Amino acid sequence: MSVLQEICPNVRNMKNLEGAILARQACQIKEELRQGVRKPYREVIDVSFSDPHRTGVKPLTFVRQVLAACIYPQLMNSNKLPVDVRQRAQRLLRACYGGSIGSYSEAAGIPDIIHRISGFITKRDGGLPSYPENIHTTAGSQWSLMNVLKVLVNSRASPRTAVLTPGPCYSTAILSFMSVGAVVVPYYLSEKQGWKLQIEELHRALDSTKGVYNPVALYIINPGNPAGLVQSRKSIEDVIKFVSEKRLFLLADEVYQDYVYGGNKEFVSYKRVLAEMGPPLSDTVELASFHSASKGFLGECGLRAGYVELVNLDRAVMKHTNTLILKQACAPVLGQIALDLMMNPPQPGDPSYPLYSMETQYMQTTLAHNVKKALLVINSLPGFCCQPVEGGQFLFPRLFLPHKAVQKAKEAGIQPDTFYCIRLLEEAGVLASPGCEYNQKEGTHHIRFCIMTHMDIMEELLKRLTTFHTQFMQDFS
Amino acid sequence: MSVLQEICPNVRNMKNLEGAILARQACQIKEELRQGVRKPYREVIDVSFSDPHRTGVKPLTFVRQVLAACIYPQLMNSNKLPVDVRQRAQRLLRACYGGSIGSYSEAAGIPDIIHRISGFITKRDGGLPSYPENIHTTAGSQWSLMNVLKVLVNSRASPRTAVLTPGPCYSTAILSFMSVGAVVVPYYLSEKQGWKLQIEELHRALDSTKGVYNPVALYIINPGNPAGLVQSRKSIEDVIKFVSEKRLFLLADEVYQDYVYGGNKEFVSYKRVLAEMGPPLSDTVELASFHSASKGFLGECGLRAGYVELVNLDRAVMKHTNTLILKQACAPVLGQIALDLMMNPPQPGDPSYPLYSMETQYMQTTLAHNVKKALLVINSLPGFCCQPVEGGQFLFPRLFLPHKAVQKAKEAGIQPDTFYCIRLLEEAGVLASPGCEYNQKEGTHHIRFCIMTHMDIMEELLKRLTTFHTQFMQDFS
Repeated sequence: MSVLQEICPNVRNMKNLEGAILARQACQIKEELRQGVRKPYREVIDVSFSDPHRTGVKPLTFVRQVLAACIYPQLMNSNKLPVDVRQRAQRLLRACYGGSIGSYSEAAGIPDIIHRISGFITKRDGGLPSYPENIHTTAGSQWSLMNVLKVLVNSRASPRTAVLTPGPCYSTAILSFMSVGAVVVPYYLSEKQGWKLQIEELHRALDSTKGVYNPVALYIINPGNPAGLVQSRKSIEDVIKFVSEKRLFLLADEVYQDYVYGGNKEFVSYKRVLAEMGPPLSDTVELASFHSASKGFLGECGLRAGYVELVNLDRAVMKHTNTLILKQACAPVLGQIALDLMMNPPQPGDPSYPLYSMETQYMQTTLAHNVKKALLVINSLPGFCCQPVEGGQFLFPRLFLPHKAVQKAKEAGIQPDTFYCIRLLEEAGVLASPGCEYNQKEGTHHIRFCIMTHMDIMEELLKRLTTFHTQFMQDFS
Repeated sequence: MSVLQEICPNVRNMKNLEGAILARQACQIKEELRQGVRKPYREVIDVSFSDPHRTGVKPLTFVRQVLAACIYPQLMNSNKLPVDVRQRAQRLLRACYGGSIGSYSEAAGIPDIIHRISGFITKRDGGLPSYPENIHTTAGSQWSLMNVLKVLVNSRASPRTAVLTPGPCYSTAILSFMSVGAVVVPYYLSEKQGWKLQIEELHRALDSTKGVYNPVALYIINPGNPAGLVQSRKSIEDVIKFVSEKRLFLLADEVYQDYVYGGNKEFVSYKRVLAEMGPPLSDTVELASFHSASKGFLGECGLRAGYVELVNLDRAVMKHTNTLILKQACAPVLGQIALDLMMNPPQPGDPSYPLYSMETQYMQTTLAHNVKKALLVINSLPGFCCQPVEGGQFLFPRLFLPHKAVQKAKEAGIQPDTFYCIRLLEEAGVLASPGCEYNQKEGTHHIRFCIMTHMDIMEELLKRLTTFHTQFMQDFS
């Protein structure tokens, strides 16, 4: 018996994710394939994450060259690396203590890099000032979110602290809220309208907390994950007015800002819209905006680096946030360097520019091709329906499952879309995630999969999905 | 005014560290030096952390070569890197999804690396089995500790959860306990007896919680930080009996296990002693042991990687811990690779062995020299007294400050040892940490500084310290 009388309820309440069943099964199948067990496929295609290198997307050469030179500076003695790579590595190493990426940096990040992130934000937002002291790097945007939550959420409070959270919303965020003791109150995006965010729905969600919880923040993901919406300026303005009126802290997850490909859509940051709305809003609405080195064209998920920019924070809150940051060890230094390279890529005229430009253009072409092809295929299948996507790295098509399949899932004690994903994995070797993990609207079923893969892998995936899905619908019809 | 009605008390209660005053001042001084302002020194020597590369210790060539090859695999096409470096990099890349360190790994870490960590532990503990499923890697041992604490500490509970914590104890650990809502109850090590851990003192500390708090865990640092004690097998046995009797969870911070240099002392792990004590203890005492890539001879603090091994955990607790780990993104992949290299260094006969061996021996020589020299100098100064150190990377000498200095500090509203450290920084350009940050016994004063520096830097540091201290004692006598 354990020495523990009781497990912390924040942890106890975290559901044992159905995705975990899938992940374990995927491991087992991979092991069987390695041992030569014959299956209808030779490899599992894992599109359950946004993790481009996993599915054949190549790292950017410039990024890897600078990182390698920073790690092993002897490389700079040869002429094999382009001169701008060497110069960049030298500059970055000068900013590291003792000239080594093995030293800790300041808790918030290397000051030189923080300044360059701030410069990137200013440029992105049309000259709007960004203050380095409001920017903190962490080991991924999830940790940035956790830092802000630790200040926002009082886990001992009664009534309990609530965060308005989109439905659908990616599962890591939901678990982060729960792990700090917050209650997740969903507002549902309108699937029929391409996952549009409706202000009436925000009001409904907020009203539902009355007398039960203490709502402190609104969490927004733009561009969306898993739903690929990109908010218009008007929609952002409406959200800002709402949080201002209701005195909510605005948590803006903007990690997919580089991934906007819907017709005439473009990414506009919450910070920019807020500033352009002018006083009193621009001076009062408290905002945290998150970005990450995993989610831009770098796709360097394994390096673990993200940042948060804080806007309009009350001085007392800012002081506590800084204390919290200060007590933590720094973000991985190579991850910080990746952020620097992401924010400041090679420019026309630089020796590395032509290759860099070719590689990123190829990614854009790949993504455009994958989205188009995947939408076409999925929407041609019976029982499948996917809204047009404007941004992000995922499709989140709706599944209309036959009654027999829903029944079968019930008997197995799992959600119907988990049942579908398990079969998809077993029979077709495709690992996608079930919609039940994403705060989807009750009674609906979806699957999520990443579209930032090598073109050939997407072709293969769609082929397997088509065969599997057709058979599945037949089997359970 | 903020939208926040109240800041989470766990965060609010975290003291604004006095070290922060020092860090800010150090930044300012460095900026002044850069601008050419004349001071009695040309550079600040920062020994406030254990951060060897910062103070001139060189990274290990083998480690940096493998990391560079993993980041930029094109390097493996040339013969410039030794063959064992290339083989190791190839093996590690094969274990990464898509062959890239830019992919996420499993949440607990790359299975191949976890197996090799487990192999290292088995070998270290004389063949005692270690199970990969009990090992999790994180972005540094601090995060591993936080994960365990999140399960152990119920922040909503009343009476509040307490952790018995050594005095002195390094400040990051103290802040970690506080940030999850635990109460830190100090047990004091006996400075006069070379910082020995006394079981009577554990009893006293535990008794002090009666009727006030709910003690759930005992936190131990062995080898010590900041006190450089290395526990004997007998002392470890006594602690194990104590926690078993009192039904406490044992948190064993063993990150300095490579740094033992006191005469005939050697590091023995808690896990090994526990196993060798036999049933029922060996089957029941719940233990978490922490280690890190920052604190071995690698000194790769900037990579951010550590691991925890869990022993005898109740199944329900283990399930919750796994859920918690699962919801997090993985540890930085390059940090995981550093752990692999640390646990499995080049062996005699490998091409990289001679250089690796020379480099690590040089570090040991440096450390032995630095410890000896620093103890000699400090113990020759009036008002300074340092116990012999047996392990770890710090000296924590006691300061007997003149009454006038204590008075002056009081007037300035700071602790006497912070006052000393500020003067040391301003006048001698040496950044050490004040004992008040380390749960030192009330009424005593200390400073902490890292001794794992380049020899020349240690010489320079001791010269500056001697001049400064002599003058300080005169000024305030």
